[in-house]
Amino acid sequence: MSDLTHIDAQGNANMVDVTQKSVTEREARAEGYVYMNQNTFDLIVSRGHKKGDVLAIAQIAGIQAAKRTSDLIPLCHPLMLTSVKVHLEPEAPTDEQPQPRVRIESLCKLAGQTGVEMEALTAVSVAALTLYDMCKAVDKAMRIEGIQLLEKRGGKSGHYQTPSASQSK
Amino acid sequence: MSDLTHIDAQGNANMVDVTQKSVTEREARAEGYVYMNQNTFDLIVSRGHKKGDVLAIAQIAGIQAAKRTSDLIPLCHPLMLTSVKVHLEPEAPTDEQPQPRVRIESLCKLAGQTGVEMEALTAVSVAALTLYDMCKAVDKAMRIEGIQLLEKRGGKSGHYQTPSASQSK
Amino acid sequence: MSDLTHIDAQGNANMVDVTQKSVTEREARAEGYVYMNQNTFDLIVSRGHKKGDVLAIAQIAGIQAAKRTSDLIPLCHPLMLTSVKVHLEPEAPTDEQPQPRVRIESLCKLAGQTGVEMEALTAVSVAALTLYDMCKAVDKAMRIEGIQLLEKRGGKSGHYQTPSASQSK
Amino acid sequence: MSDLTHIDAQGNANMVDVTQKSVTEREARAEGYVYMNQNTFDLIVSRGHKKGDVLAIAQIAGIQAAKRTSDLIPLCHPLMLTSVKVHLEPEAPTDEQPQPRVRIESLCKLAGQTGVEMEALTAVSVAALTLYDMCKAVDKAMRIEGIQLLEKRGGKSGHYQTPSASQSK
Amino acid sequence: MSDLTHIDAQGNANMVDVTQKSVTEREARAEGYVYMNQNTFDLIVSRGHKKGDVLAIAQIAGIQAAKRTSDLIPLCHPLMLTSVKVHLEPEAPTDEQPQPRVRIESLCKLAGQTGVEMEALTAVSVAALTLYDMCKAVDKAMRIEGIQLLEKRGGKSGHYQTPSASQSK
Amino acid sequence: MSDLTHIDAQGNANMVDVTQKSVTEREARAEGYVYMNQNTFDLIVSRGHKKGDVLAIAQIAGIQAAKRTSDLIPLCHPLMLTSVKVHLEPEAPTDEQPQPRVRIESLCKLAGQTGVEMEALTAVSVAALTLYDMCKAVDKAMRIEGIQLLEKRGGKSGHYQTPSASQSK
Repeated sequence: MSDLTHIDAQGNANMVDVTQKSVTEREARAEGYVYMNQNTFDLIVSRGHKKGDVLAIAQIAGIQAAKRTSDLIPLCHPLMLTSVKVHLEPEAPTDEQPQPRVRIESLCKLAGQTGVEMEALTAVSVAALTLYDMCKAVDKAMRIEGIQLLEKRGGKSGHYQTPSASQSK
Repeated sequence: MSDLTHIDAQGNANMVDVTQKSVTEREARAEGYVYMNQNTFDLIVSRGHKKGDVLAIAQIAGIQAAKRTSDLIPLCHPLMLTSVKVHLEPEAPTDEQPQPRVRIESLCKLAGQTGVEMEALTAVSVAALTLYDMCKAVDKAMRIEGIQLLEKRGGKSGHYQTPSASQSK
Repeated sequence: MSDLTHIDAQGNANMVDVTQKSVTEREARAEGYVYMNQNTFDLIVSRGHKKGDVLAIAQIAGIQAAKRTSDLIPLCHPLMLTSVKVHLEPEAPTDEQPQPRVRIESLCKLAGQTGVEMEALTAVSVAALTLYDMCKAVDKAMRIEGIQLLEKRGGKSGHYQTPSASQSK
Repeated sequence: MSDLTHIDAQGNANMVDVTQKSVTEREARAEGYVYMNQNTFDLIVSRGHKKGDVLAIAQIAGIQAAKRTSDLIPLCHPLMLTSVKVHLEPEAPTDEQPQPRVRIESLCKLAGQTGVEMEALTAVSVAALTLYDMCKAVDKAMRIEGIQLLEKRGGKSGHYQTPSASQSK
Repeated sequence: MSDLTHIDAQGNANMVDVTQKSVTEREARAEGYVYMNQNTFDLIVSRGHKKGDVLAIAQIAGIQAAKRTSDLIPLCHPLMLTSVKVHLEPEAPTDEQPQPRVRIESLCKLAGQTGVEMEALTAVSVAALTLYDMCKAVDKAMRIEGIQLLEKRGGKSGHYQTPSASQSK
Repeated sequence: MSDLTHIDAQGNANMVDVTQKSVTEREARAEGYVYMNQNTFDLIVSRGHKKGDVLAIAQIAGIQAAKRTSDLIPLCHPLMLTSVKVHLEPEAPTDEQPQPRVRIESLCKLAGQTGVEMEALTAVSVAALTLYDMCKAVDKAMRIEGIQLLEKRGGKSGHYQTPSASQSK
């Protein structure tokens, strides 16, 4: 598989035909980070002890976005996720990682004919955007970084683990 | 404005009340990057000379996503964008920037009561995800990096330019 | 099952993982009522003999809403309904029930890994809201009452019938 | 205004033409209740002290649903809400009101040509459905009751207050 | 204006920037036809005397689709329609027009910065598709024909009337 | 099957119950045409050699619309397409067909309990509307014609070929 599967021989866009693929259990795990200044980080963390905090809202937004992936990404197949998990973890600055950040990790599953990598990545992206939205009044310089697939299982291509994933957490 | 505007005094989520804000012309510019290996980069660039290439599809997906921002981000206001531009530019490796990447820049505008930062950031994010989707068969290790607001104009808070924006292009 | 399945041990929201659940035939039946004044009731009933009446539009809105349940309810799984029925019945006042009302009943089915209670309840709710919308110019005091699950079949928890369902029809 | 505005003289459905209406500031307030057993009520209340609780998720779902009202209710106009507030309050049983319940209240605003009653009612309905969804594993007999408009302001018909609203809170 | 406004000088897709356009009252009228065999036509017409007939459902679907135009057509601006009308009229065969058909006409209005031609055309198209859907069990050979803009008013380009529109009704 | 399956015996709308239908592989092929003047045709064709051309955008819009069919057509079942193909072909005028046009053909597939005719027809319709949108600044008199089902396979009713399909290509 050495070529772009979504573009056919004539250069046209193509939704990959998965009709003949077998139904297998599939899952994908992705991550991403939102970097911010110390003041914003402190506000997020201190709010974390009350209801309605920004992390909970970003988590819900990420779960909902995973369900809408095929609506957002033009050549994604519609599919029926059986599980979506999104977790946000504030990471205080350390010597090696001096800027405060929130780490986002997602896990999506289904039994189907196509993988769920895009659902996992979309969940992380929209959770990150939601975090940005809720803090932008105090910190417009936040950055979203390091969105990547960590791992996938199932399907013909089998198990995949992103090289950098071992050290990413 | 030293606090999170989307969480009220009781810790509840809050869609900021903009009823009394004046209608002004507003715009926001955002950017982001997708890093990939050389083979993937070459496939994207060579396809760029034919119709239906991945950059054109990612661009369309970004424009459409901007229009759906209030559906994706829970506390965003619905609004009527008057302009959305998304541009993708392959950047071949250089000495300073040794990994091949595609740079994505968006520009959103409207005349309204609330800013369009989230629309610009959402356009970049979904264009990046679409690029990932179309190339993932050849390169699962692509990463989405550096999504940030470059600039905004209009509204009470006036002109804002991200500190790093000056050198980013 | 003595706890809230949608909140995990850390207090985070959770879309229940149904990956390992078996696919069984499932159905759910729900009901609800819209109470109104006599004049509004008469308008609805008299229009019922012509095409384009409010009951037909409310019915269509209820069917469509059932299909969008996972878009509306954050932790609902996307699923593929195989049947949606919505029925609206004007109920003239009686001695026991002196206020005119319209009764709404829905029935949803699928073969899947998760139940369709929320789809049935969403169909009833949106049909009721649509009825309100179409009559609100003449009667803003209408009330939506008694939305409940009547019965469900299929899945691990088996057959369920709401205690009050026996007398509700 | 003694007739159904959404049905024209030929009995056809009709999206009311508001082109000539003036833009005024409008708001609407609605309420509703979810009745449940004591065990479910206790679970909701005790979770209320941790992040990610069911009330916060139902609140977010209600806010998002308000923004999608014109997608759900066939003859509603699309409009740009400037404010949506949803509040959920557990009400422990009293002598007069012996069943535990959660009260939901919403407030929607915009400056526009048409009212926001349907948005306020939709927010309450979907928040109630979300509450049901998150507790249905422990209590399928919950009921959604008393969804009604409490008050509206703005527009040609001016101020309206539901007769029962004075005592409802 | 002698070129494609939606493609910029570099050949990229472009959502036309209407930020500087003035807000004027705009409207557009479109039509289309669904051709069918006599049996299908008779079923539609005879059902027309009962509630829930296919014409009423197609009409509702057309109105709803007009509201979703910017979601369907990638480079359309989001806008707030103030009026949508859809009318379906069965036309029995005549000497000049020997095949039974249903004529669909739509009218959309708003006060805004961009026209509503696409909304009017989308309403007709989806009403036609809905008619097809409801009759396809008896007549798969139905054809959708003659979808065109009849007339538009407002905006810089002013009044436009399709040449063939004069005789089309 | 001599009657309208989507209307029940009481004249109510009905989403056909497919719960008991067997899962079979199904596909449907549809076509349609957009007629235009020579100038518009030339612009489309000449742009076809650059990236971002109108045909590529219309193709993407058609693919995305197929995935949203059950959202647009009230009584369509939600389903999980395994393949969507949309192809647009400019057809220069000939003696028999003197007006320039673009032909659109779609092919949809899934393994499911219900057919995909509506998905194929919706893909063609929205691709045609998108073409219209992108060229309307130069040619408002374009017409969408000849949208029909060409062929379907699978399901109880088996293979169907539209009579006129043999000569249509």
